Amino acid sequence: MAKTAGIVIIGSEVLSGKVTDENSPYLARELRDLGVEVRRMVTIPDERPVIVEAVRDMAQTHDFVFTTGGVGPTHDDVTIAAIAQTFGRRLVRDPLLEAMLRQHYGAEITAAQLRMAEVPEGSRLLGEEAGRLPIVACENVFIFPGVPETVRRKFARIRETFREAPYVVRRIYLRCDEGEIAADLCNAVDHFSAVQIGSYPILHNPDHTVLVTLESKREEEVEETLRHLLARLPAAMVVRVE
Amino acid sequence: MAKTAGIVIIGSEVLSGKVTDENSPYLARELRDLGVEVRRMVTIPDERPVIVEAVRDMAQTHDFVFTTGGVGPTHDDVTIAAIAQTFGRRLVRDPLLEAMLRQHYGAEITAAQLRMAEVPEGSRLLGEEAGRLPIVACENVFIFPGVPETVRRKFARIRETFREAPYVVRRIYLRCDEGEIAADLCNAVDHFSAVQIGSYPILHNPDHTVLVTLESKREEEVEETLRHLLARLPAAMVVRVE
Repeated sequence: MAKTAGIVIIGSEVLSGKVTDENSPYLARELRDLGVEVRRMVTIPDERPVIVEAVRDMAQTHDFVFTTGGVGPTHDDVTIAAIAQTFGRRLVRDPLLEAMLRQHYGAEITAAQLRMAEVPEGSRLLGEEAGRLPIVACENVFIFPGVPETVRRKFARIRETFREAPYVVRRIYLRCDEGEIAADLCNAVDHFSAVQIGSYPILHNPDHTVLVTLESKREEEVEETLRHLLARLPAAMVVRVE
Repeated sequence: MAKTAGIVIIGSEVLSGKVTDENSPYLARELRDLGVEVRRMVTIPDERPVIVEAVRDMAQTHDFVFTTGGVGPTHDDVTIAAIAQTFGRRLVRDPLLEAMLRQHYGAEITAAQLRMAEVPEGSRLLGEEAGRLPIVACENVFIFPGVPETVRRKFARIRETFREAPYVVRRIYLRCDEGEIAADLCNAVDHFSAVQIGSYPILHNPDHTVLVTLESKREEEVEETLRHLLARLPAAMVVRVE
């Protein structure tokens, strides 16, 4: 079984349509590429009780949870406090984070800026890099800020720690109506339940009208499913196989 | 209180990073513009038990639920059956949908294509348009397909039925560190709890480094919050107000 992940996007600005979330598509692609199965993504407002409930639910049912957003010095940055509450931990000021913040802001550092040194007690600091704040992880939850550029830079520092066996994907491009191949797909699903078979209609494409994907961590099963399907699908419909 | 909405994206292809979901950003923007408060968005796989649980949870806690994806003729199109199960309804073949599908596919219609005429018993058909399938709604759940172009066309047909009092938004663009204005923002939050105050760091912008947004359905409250904040924020930090 693949390790599973859940993604929690903390962002009232995403729910109100002011900002398009780039972090969940990025993390979904990265994690899939690492062989991790993302099972759920949820977007919630910057409200502490909502975050506590969502993170608790995700952390109990997934191997890893990634949160983005709600990290910073202002009143709407409540993610750290919410995650401490989720796991029944106190908020403590981390000496390394405090030193980095004091170095960055200098003698005029505000109380709000110092709040960014607070972490749930017992958190780990990951992916340290000179002059950059590390990633805070508490239990199986990895806490990222909301700015996409920062998420990418931080995730890159720890991505290899999540790597496991890769997914194998084969693609069949067809020219047909999905309804014409539905019975053949059903037949393949019945025979190869461990292979994830997806069927997607493609609009306005002169080349193909349906894409069928076969995915699993077991290459031989994917190949067997592909042979099984190609033996049944009308050859005239198949544009190509990749 | 604004009417609330939840969005359920049914799409294994989104979770596996193959496709970037365009539907939740679109629906979030449209609903906000209509004065509806989107409280939660969740992306889940094309798996019937997962859909049943997610839709039940959303339907109980929001005024409206919008689902996208999992509608069509193939084995991975299980949304309609899942929503029937969510509300304990039988699946029945709708005569209008059947007639439209038979007209579209002709005498060679397959059993799989005919499955697209099935709806949860007692569903409503909305937004009828010559030659186009209507939207299926069951209780407070509005069922959309996954293809973004189709979602946009279908939603446009019913969008005005969701319109209510609009949100009023004011924006303050600043040049400062968020931590320098955090105390002033906290003070405003304490005084004007009904106004949603957001603070967003902006990277690599020569004009401003922080955007503060004030939102509510009550214009006078937003204006009062704006005056309160502008009286406290150091004038040299304020780039402009919109």
